[in-house]
Amino acid sequence: MTHAQRMIETNPSSAPVDALAFAECIEACFDCAQACTACADACLGEQEVSDLVKCIRDDLDCADICAAAGNVLSRQTHPSQEVTRKILEACAASCRQCGDTCAEHADHHEHCRVCMEVCRRCESACNNLLSAMGA
Amino acid sequence: MTHAQRMIETNPSSAPVDALAFAECIEACFDCAQACTACADACLGEQEVSDLVKCIRDDLDCADICAAAGNVLSRQTHPSQEVTRKILEACAASCRQCGDTCAEHADHHEHCRVCMEVCRRCESACNNLLSAMGA
Amino acid sequence: MTHAQRMIETNPSSAPVDALAFAECIEACFDCAQACTACADACLGEQEVSDLVKCIRDDLDCADICAAAGNVLSRQTHPSQEVTRKILEACAASCRQCGDTCAEHADHHEHCRVCMEVCRRCESACNNLLSAMGA
Amino acid sequence: MTHAQRMIETNPSSAPVDALAFAECIEACFDCAQACTACADACLGEQEVSDLVKCIRDDLDCADICAAAGNVLSRQTHPSQEVTRKILEACAASCRQCGDTCAEHADHHEHCRVCMEVCRRCESACNNLLSAMGA
Repeated sequence: MTHAQRMIETNPSSAPVDALAFAECIEACFDCAQACTACADACLGEQEVSDLVKCIRDDLDCADICAAAGNVLSRQTHPSQEVTRKILEACAASCRQCGDTCAEHADHHEHCRVCMEVCRRCESACNNLLSAMGA
Repeated sequence: MTHAQRMIETNPSSAPVDALAFAECIEACFDCAQACTACADACLGEQEVSDLVKCIRDDLDCADICAAAGNVLSRQTHPSQEVTRKILEACAASCRQCGDTCAEHADHHEHCRVCMEVCRRCESACNNLLSAMGA
Repeated sequence: MTHAQRMIETNPSSAPVDALAFAECIEACFDCAQACTACADACLGEQEVSDLVKCIRDDLDCADICAAAGNVLSRQTHPSQEVTRKILEACAASCRQCGDTCAEHADHHEHCRVCMEVCRRCESACNNLLSAMGA
Repeated sequence: MTHAQRMIETNPSSAPVDALAFAECIEACFDCAQACTACADACLGEQEVSDLVKCIRDDLDCADICAAAGNVLSRQTHPSQEVTRKILEACAASCRQCGDTCAEHADHHEHCRVCMEVCRRCESACNNLLSAMGA
């Protein structure tokens, strides 16, 4: 069991929908925040950094939004369905955007390929949770 | 002229819509992130903290989302309209939620009254920018 | 191999010290940021929230500092030894503080016990990396 | 009176040292987080982005650390002197580092000149607060 799962199970407030979808989305958000921060830096270190400017920008946005989403989802006390849904939609959008941009460089830069995979998984986890919430 | 305005004007990439609406929204987001963080702490310090649990939770979500929105809006290079719109919608929603909760305590706790005002201003700035973007 | 490890290995800039100590510290920081955010919320949801005010405060500080440290460590291009060392020291201090406070509640609240463990691991990872850096 | 000052005065817990030094440092941290995020983006948008890689990296670290410091300082309930001092030292170090790097480009890029000024002010505010705390 991961730490995120243990924190969900030991919280006195129940998760609003199934705990597994929550845990997967929380872990995906924190993982994606880390990968996007690292991918932006790896792009910065490449010789052809000027070709990777859009990728760096999308990485930075995605890192910020995933971090915010991961925090909101980590809270189970008095949740707002509206706020949860909106930050999940923003997170899915930024993961799709960043995943698509990284996909363009995945053949040339292994860090973009890894980051693309992590973004795809996070986008999917956000959409799964939105479905589980009935949104 | 504020620092946020000076940073917009000196950025080689142009702001996608009118610079003033951007600057106001950026400043409102950072201001709201600070006020919500401070209000959560002030609520924690009150004797009747158990009556303020929902307010603390809404403050924490709003602080995280405003910080992410403020960062995304501070970037002008290769913006994604979709991501910008989604994080603005999430920010407006969290400011409305937090502003409404703080409004319930505004008569008893001056920090909730100040925080409510800051949330209202940020919600309004997000909605103004969404309108300016044609969203 | 974790995503953090894969991102380190695919970064064109080399990690300044051994990659494993870096990867472990990055993962510990993001894990601790999540656990502290979740523990603060779990404390908020407890009946005796007024007894947990200090724990919530320490959780919130530790979450913020771990998130910043995790981001700084995820960057390998043109690192500043001074900045890296200082944020590691701040992170070790906040993990020690939060771990000690959670330890006081570990017998009564399982979330505090889990959070304490995660804080101890992150404090240790920060100190290991400081040693590896020769600081 | 700024919002940060109003939040300090309405907090039921007192600020540990003089409130003005706290308010100035909080405002400087949030201002610097914004300016550094914006400067990183402005550098990304410049034609000679490859000459600005170190500046972008320092901007990103400084933005993360200033945001964490601004949050920690915004909390007045059960503060830890040790954690406060360590995050202030990290913030002063990252502002000095980023300010020095921006200074190298201040003649060519107005955004670096503005960011340098904001970093210098934040470094100074952190050091003033450390002195006020007797550290």
